[in-house]
Amino acid sequence: MALVVQKYGGSSVATKDLIESVARRAVATKRAGHQVVVVLSAMKGETDRLLNLAHSISETPSPREVDTLISTGEQITIALFSMICSTMGEKVKSFLGFQAGIKTDDAHTRARIMDIDASRIKTELAKNRIAVVAGFQGINRHGDITTLGRGGSDTTAVALAIALKAKVCEIYTDVDGIYTTDPNICDSARRIDKICYDEMLELASLGAKVMEIRSVELAMNYGVRIHVRHALTQSPGTIICEEDADMERTPVRGVTSSVQEGRITLLKVPDKPGVAARILEIISKAGIVIDMIIQNQSFSSNGDDNIWTDFSFTVPASDYKTTLDLMTAAGKEIGASKVVGDNNIAKVSLVGVGMRNHAGVATLMFKTLASEGINICMISTSEIKISCIIEKKYAELAVRALHIAFNLGAPV
Amino acid sequence: MALVVQKYGGSSVATKDLIESVARRAVATKRAGHQVVVVLSAMKGETDRLLNLAHSISETPSPREVDTLISTGEQITIALFSMICSTMGEKVKSFLGFQAGIKTDDAHTRARIMDIDASRIKTELAKNRIAVVAGFQGINRHGDITTLGRGGSDTTAVALAIALKAKVCEIYTDVDGIYTTDPNICDSARRIDKICYDEMLELASLGAKVMEIRSVELAMNYGVRIHVRHALTQSPGTIICEEDADMERTPVRGVTSSVQEGRITLLKVPDKPGVAARILEIISKAGIVIDMIIQNQSFSSNGDDNIWTDFSFTVPASDYKTTLDLMTAAGKEIGASKVVGDNNIAKVSLVGVGMRNHAGVATLMFKTLASEGINICMISTSEIKISCIIEKKYAELAVRALHIAFNLGAPV
Repeated sequence: MALVVQKYGGSSVATKDLIESVARRAVATKRAGHQVVVVLSAMKGETDRLLNLAHSISETPSPREVDTLISTGEQITIALFSMICSTMGEKVKSFLGFQAGIKTDDAHTRARIMDIDASRIKTELAKNRIAVVAGFQGINRHGDITTLGRGGSDTTAVALAIALKAKVCEIYTDVDGIYTTDPNICDSARRIDKICYDEMLELASLGAKVMEIRSVELAMNYGVRIHVRHALTQSPGTIICEEDADMERTPVRGVTSSVQEGRITLLKVPDKPGVAARILEIISKAGIVIDMIIQNQSFSSNGDDNIWTDFSFTVPASDYKTTLDLMTAAGKEIGASKVVGDNNIAKVSLVGVGMRNHAGVATLMFKTLASEGINICMISTSEIKISCIIEKKYAELAVRALHIAFNLGAPV
Repeated sequence: MALVVQKYGGSSVATKDLIESVARRAVATKRAGHQVVVVLSAMKGETDRLLNLAHSISETPSPREVDTLISTGEQITIALFSMICSTMGEKVKSFLGFQAGIKTDDAHTRARIMDIDASRIKTELAKNRIAVVAGFQGINRHGDITTLGRGGSDTTAVALAIALKAKVCEIYTDVDGIYTTDPNICDSARRIDKICYDEMLELASLGAKVMEIRSVELAMNYGVRIHVRHALTQSPGTIICEEDADMERTPVRGVTSSVQEGRITLLKVPDKPGVAARILEIISKAGIVIDMIIQNQSFSSNGDDNIWTDFSFTVPASDYKTTLDLMTAAGKEIGASKVVGDNNIAKVSLVGVGMRNHAGVATLMFKTLASEGINICMISTSEIKISCIIEKKYAELAVRALHIAFNLGAPV
């Protein structure tokens, strides 16, 4: 007998019939002799419906009231799911965030879990009940309802798995695991059996949408094994865990692309101490997060002593316009000759812990892109990933070409 | 400066625009210098939608899960209402039942409020905030969400008015007060300025739908003044309070009719001790509440020593079929010669504390019905009401005739 945490996402509980299907899976797990904790998202579309309602009232609705409002989505699914489990003859009890002892900080709409007092869930599990917990929500020290931000139900599931010392945290979704790349872009995309936390984190940061980043970080910090599976099939899914000998020995685990960024370039900025800091200060004061930064030193071309540089960086597409406006306004102060922007870009990335030990990954990547006539605008690397900014229209072509070049579709 | 509790019903918060209208009223009350506590129902239709969802899963869904499910309705309205008050520049905070300190017993779906710890609301009022409380819900000693049954938001409002020692509990609805009879039936129906608790209780029990009975009882027990008003007009409404010298000196305050009952008659039951008790035992064991009971003793007509009686009673229409089946099955044991039923009936009632001091009310009632050719099947009286069971098809005619006969439409 093991304790299993199962999280079902919004698309898996979008209708009463779907809830019935996934309840059957939870009940089967219970009847196989396990203790089962189920974490649920809101029905697909419900959180957005409620958020739209809030934003139809105010551009900046009170975050506390937003949390009171949107936390109803999960409240509805746990009640319906529990009723359905009862009709199947199982003993079951639902738990809102505060009933499950999920204590968070005060940051409404993006709260962090501080502590879980799982004693009530443990009591109910000991009474042979399935515990059904509302994902995405908790309670702060004032007794106010908080929510954990987009994808927060994954975090709830992992945090509960930690608190309950669960054997595994199963994340059920509408895809059957983590893929070498987006199957919608690339026919030969292949499900990965096992992937390590670091790789999953990079993939999630770089555009793979299956797992929420914070939950992977949390799982990594506490060594919780995550099993990503399709809610409605028996596909074996993908295990996310520590790097181990079992994993495929390939230099590259996956390819991602994202068109969610814009690039700003300040031309001919004086190359002197403090300029970069000043630029970043302006951006960060506006609450905008910079992704890639590139600065190339150049020497004066007209014989004088002035040294200048071109300074480029990328920001989320949603902040592109604001950033361009900020930089255009600050350009003179900073001494740039011109500020230009481009939001017609894509970021294509290769991820894999194998890169550490394989030379030539970057070379093959650049060659592959070049052979397709794709120009590289920016490059950024880490120990286990290489990202290139290219023209947006080439994003899918680049993904397919790289997937083939690194032979990622081949069965291992 | 006074502390005012305002409750807005489901039809008054049915859409975002309506919520905006009633929020404007709450804000105006605040700006007139009062402390304001608002109690809200769910948007009209929402509770039924959720209950239907639950009953589409199971005929007997877990009451605890039903409460978790349906309490979301009020959760949504308090959040939206609070956001709207904020856009109007007011300081405001929403409270779920548990946040408002509303502690109930364990009877899910029909819980009773045991205690209110209003300290958090008091703190927020002192900070010059409007407190917006979810009606209909509380929390039990296990930390589970409970609901108070149909119309429970009225009870929440009155209970909060008691706990906070409010000057008045205003109940805003989609009619502009309590009427001498249903204006949909009788054109000359007239709004009553002031009515005493006893009369309101009888009217509510006998078919007037504006106020929930429990909340009137509660207000009576603690002497809380209720002010029933239209949410969207400036009509003066109706005050519900202790009987006082100000009230109109009429023998009859109002006329009601209800078609929500069925009548069962056991013919020729042996007239001996224990028979009535045996009949009522069978009914009450089935959880059915009897309204009127009539037993007429008769002597034997065929010269033997046996004495028999006809025994009639009424039950809610929803229990009519079950009751008829139970009595038909038990008829032989009880010794009835025949069991007959009739659910083609209506109950027409006159209510008024003035009846205590006015002779002739019953006489005029029976004469009026007779003059319209309406036969009376059963009669039941209390100190302040007279009810007659008549054929259903005459219900509206009877109401109109009685309203005229007692001159209830005349301005006072």
